[in-house]
Amino acid sequence: MRVFTIARFFPRLNSHSVKAIRRFQTTASPLNSSETQTKYDTSKHRQRLVILGTGWGSYSVLKHIDKKLFDVIVISPRNHFLFTPLLCSTTVGTLEFRSIIEPIRNTGFRDEHHFQLAEAISLSPDEHTVVCRSILNNEEYLLKYDKLVIGVGAVSNTFGVPGVNENAFFLKEVADARMIRNQILKNFELAMQPDVTEDEQKRLLQFVIVGGGPTGVEFGAELYDFVKQDVTRLYVHERSKVSVTLIEARQILPSFDAKLRDFAERKMKQREQFRLVQSSVTEVHKDHVKLQHGTIMPCGLVVWSTGLAPRPFTASVDLPKNNNNQLVVDEFLRVKDSDGSIFAIGDCSFIEAHPYPCTAQVAEREGSYVAKSLGLLAQGKTSELQPFSWKNIGMLAYLGDYQGLADFPTSKLQGFKSWILWRSVYFTKLGSWRLRFQVPFDWMRTFIWGRDISQF
Amino acid sequence: MRVFTIARFFPRLNSHSVKAIRRFQTTASPLNSSETQTKYDTSKHRQRLVILGTGWGSYSVLKHIDKKLFDVIVISPRNHFLFTPLLCSTTVGTLEFRSIIEPIRNTGFRDEHHFQLAEAISLSPDEHTVVCRSILNNEEYLLKYDKLVIGVGAVSNTFGVPGVNENAFFLKEVADARMIRNQILKNFELAMQPDVTEDEQKRLLQFVIVGGGPTGVEFGAELYDFVKQDVTRLYVHERSKVSVTLIEARQILPSFDAKLRDFAERKMKQREQFRLVQSSVTEVHKDHVKLQHGTIMPCGLVVWSTGLAPRPFTASVDLPKNNNNQLVVDEFLRVKDSDGSIFAIGDCSFIEAHPYPCTAQVAEREGSYVAKSLGLLAQGKTSELQPFSWKNIGMLAYLGDYQGLADFPTSKLQGFKSWILWRSVYFTKLGSWRLRFQVPFDWMRTFIWGRDISQF
Repeated sequence: MRVFTIARFFPRLNSHSVKAIRRFQTTASPLNSSETQTKYDTSKHRQRLVILGTGWGSYSVLKHIDKKLFDVIVISPRNHFLFTPLLCSTTVGTLEFRSIIEPIRNTGFRDEHHFQLAEAISLSPDEHTVVCRSILNNEEYLLKYDKLVIGVGAVSNTFGVPGVNENAFFLKEVADARMIRNQILKNFELAMQPDVTEDEQKRLLQFVIVGGGPTGVEFGAELYDFVKQDVTRLYVHERSKVSVTLIEARQILPSFDAKLRDFAERKMKQREQFRLVQSSVTEVHKDHVKLQHGTIMPCGLVVWSTGLAPRPFTASVDLPKNNNNQLVVDEFLRVKDSDGSIFAIGDCSFIEAHPYPCTAQVAEREGSYVAKSLGLLAQGKTSELQPFSWKNIGMLAYLGDYQGLADFPTSKLQGFKSWILWRSVYFTKLGSWRLRFQVPFDWMRTFIWGRDISQF
Repeated sequence: MRVFTIARFFPRLNSHSVKAIRRFQTTASPLNSSETQTKYDTSKHRQRLVILGTGWGSYSVLKHIDKKLFDVIVISPRNHFLFTPLLCSTTVGTLEFRSIIEPIRNTGFRDEHHFQLAEAISLSPDEHTVVCRSILNNEEYLLKYDKLVIGVGAVSNTFGVPGVNENAFFLKEVADARMIRNQILKNFELAMQPDVTEDEQKRLLQFVIVGGGPTGVEFGAELYDFVKQDVTRLYVHERSKVSVTLIEARQILPSFDAKLRDFAERKMKQREQFRLVQSSVTEVHKDHVKLQHGTIMPCGLVVWSTGLAPRPFTASVDLPKNNNNQLVVDEFLRVKDSDGSIFAIGDCSFIEAHPYPCTAQVAEREGSYVAKSLGLLAQGKTSELQPFSWKNIGMLAYLGDYQGLADFPTSKLQGFKSWILWRSVYFTKLGSWRLRFQVPFDWMRTFIWGRDISQF
């Protein structure tokens, strides 16, 4: 492992650890040392806060933390925050990819080196260090922290089904959405190649979604809109060959109210070329999936969105975890049995006293709570700390064809009004004026001119 | 070579050629045969026009052709038209990629099968057939035409310099622009990795442009704007390490007026961190270029834009060509020594009587001219045919920092006013209302919020 001139980033290391690190050092970085020294001298009373991740939780910490009290360093393999509730809309071009992401560097760092495009790979709680690996050049380096927030999220759970990683698409990142969009458009063009048989056309235009949670349902909804609004216009003869199949072993939208769930199921079943199959997938191949009881379903695209699994980092760290390999935290979101310097939030954490669902809403609330707590701790106001609590403010889902679901604690709405609500709520939740400007623009453009089917 | 059920696409084939083709047929396409038959019956008096390419020339034919007179089939490896004068703006995010492209399927085909994502690979003028290869599944098939327009354009000329194809980026397509954008952003992030030496940082942020034509100059201009407007804000400490070098063996912007050329040179030389080097590149490596006389120039990105070379298709067809392997055409743009059924336009053609420059303007004019000629021919009005002529309406170039050049036959403008003109002219030239809506929106967004540096 190579260790770099750590002093440039971490002037607050004590002399012992600096020496220990220098022993491993292979390349010196004489760059700007006097300037850096001066720069960091002014911050010597600040603690170093390391945030792992750039999802809902981590981004919320970053936005709410008092940067006068902390030197913040963010470690993440992606350089932007992603507004996940609108991700499905980008898979067919209702929204553009860049309309729902926000570069992390725009969040007002004191120094641009405080964001590093890297992954945390291991953690030493006793020494207050994290080992990071650059995702650009694979170099590993050591990072010292005073406080650490782990908000690395989770990955899609394949449940060990063979072929998922090789042949299915996940839908967690903007890069996934782009791959799905290109694959959909490619399949339409392939289906129009001169020597393609009708069976092959039907296979190419059979889209399979595994998992009936909000992501699966909303992706199906967007696909339905794309077929109804654009395919009919641009690929007239192929339209009749398209079919969308949603496979779910139990019930769709399990976290929603039963009445709303029924409405969603009814809507979906009414739709020609849309099938809801109660089964589970046992194998995923290049051109088909195999269901329970051996049914073979030929298809041109499989999108896999069935629950969460821990990231390798979370699974490997030596901290208390629950059965799902989530980090167990107390009611102050501090990792259990640690010295109080490590916090875990979002999908990679589990509050032992009263577990909350793994949603963006919870993660965001946890992030702002931790930012506030850290501020109080830094100012010595420990008595003002309150345990974390969260109140569900409601859930929304889009069903396609201007129909939505809105599940609030006090009221349940379905249909067109819920769709209006869906758009309004997410519009107001967008994190910056740029996005608030861009998203309605995209909606209008799609409404007037349809979705862009260019591939490049 | 596999040949498909040609009748689906080409009902006007005579029985002899259908038989000839059926002999090669390996997969039948029973699909919709009755429906297709009916559909094509209505068109039996129309000639089949095959257009190769979707650039300025071919797209102009497609827009101007009378679709009542012809069954048009477009063959191209890309499914969109690209507004090339604004391509450089997308390499740094001033404009987004989809803001300057127009899907070919939006141009009102009679049947969606009339656009095929394929490349022409050979031509038999005697039999009026083109062999095409699908770029999706590599299947080859035969296409019969009554009239053929070759508008396949050209590729960048490497002049046989070793390493160009492997290590340099071209800037002809939107996919190139995206690769360049990602590489620029990646280099900035790499330069900020903890253990990178100052020399390595400088290498990563040294951007080399080979070729001083409009593309090279405008890419340099956009890079300059990006550094000045965004890098200074987002990568404060890296700013001083950035440098842009434009290498040109002769003079920059050779087609422009000498006074304007001097203005451009003066502007560039005034700029810190911008160098104009009069030399030529003899080798391109992963991390450096080698110049004439052996100078080694370390760099993180090489963009190669030095003139045009023929596409393999143009080079291989058995038709009269000039020294540059361009198809020689007469003053009616018909390929010389052919039977009058093959037209060639744009960068792949050469008018023997009075050669015109290889520009978008000429290609577009040639396209609309051919569309009109074909209409007259189809209606038997051969006496109304006029030889092709073109009058230069002027040239524009962007120099960065709100400075431009405008070279009109009657007046020469430089500076801020030319920049306004540059934007206004290209805005009005955009091919659709969607783009006319999107481009000013992007300009405004960049002006207010800066360029998006997200990578995915």
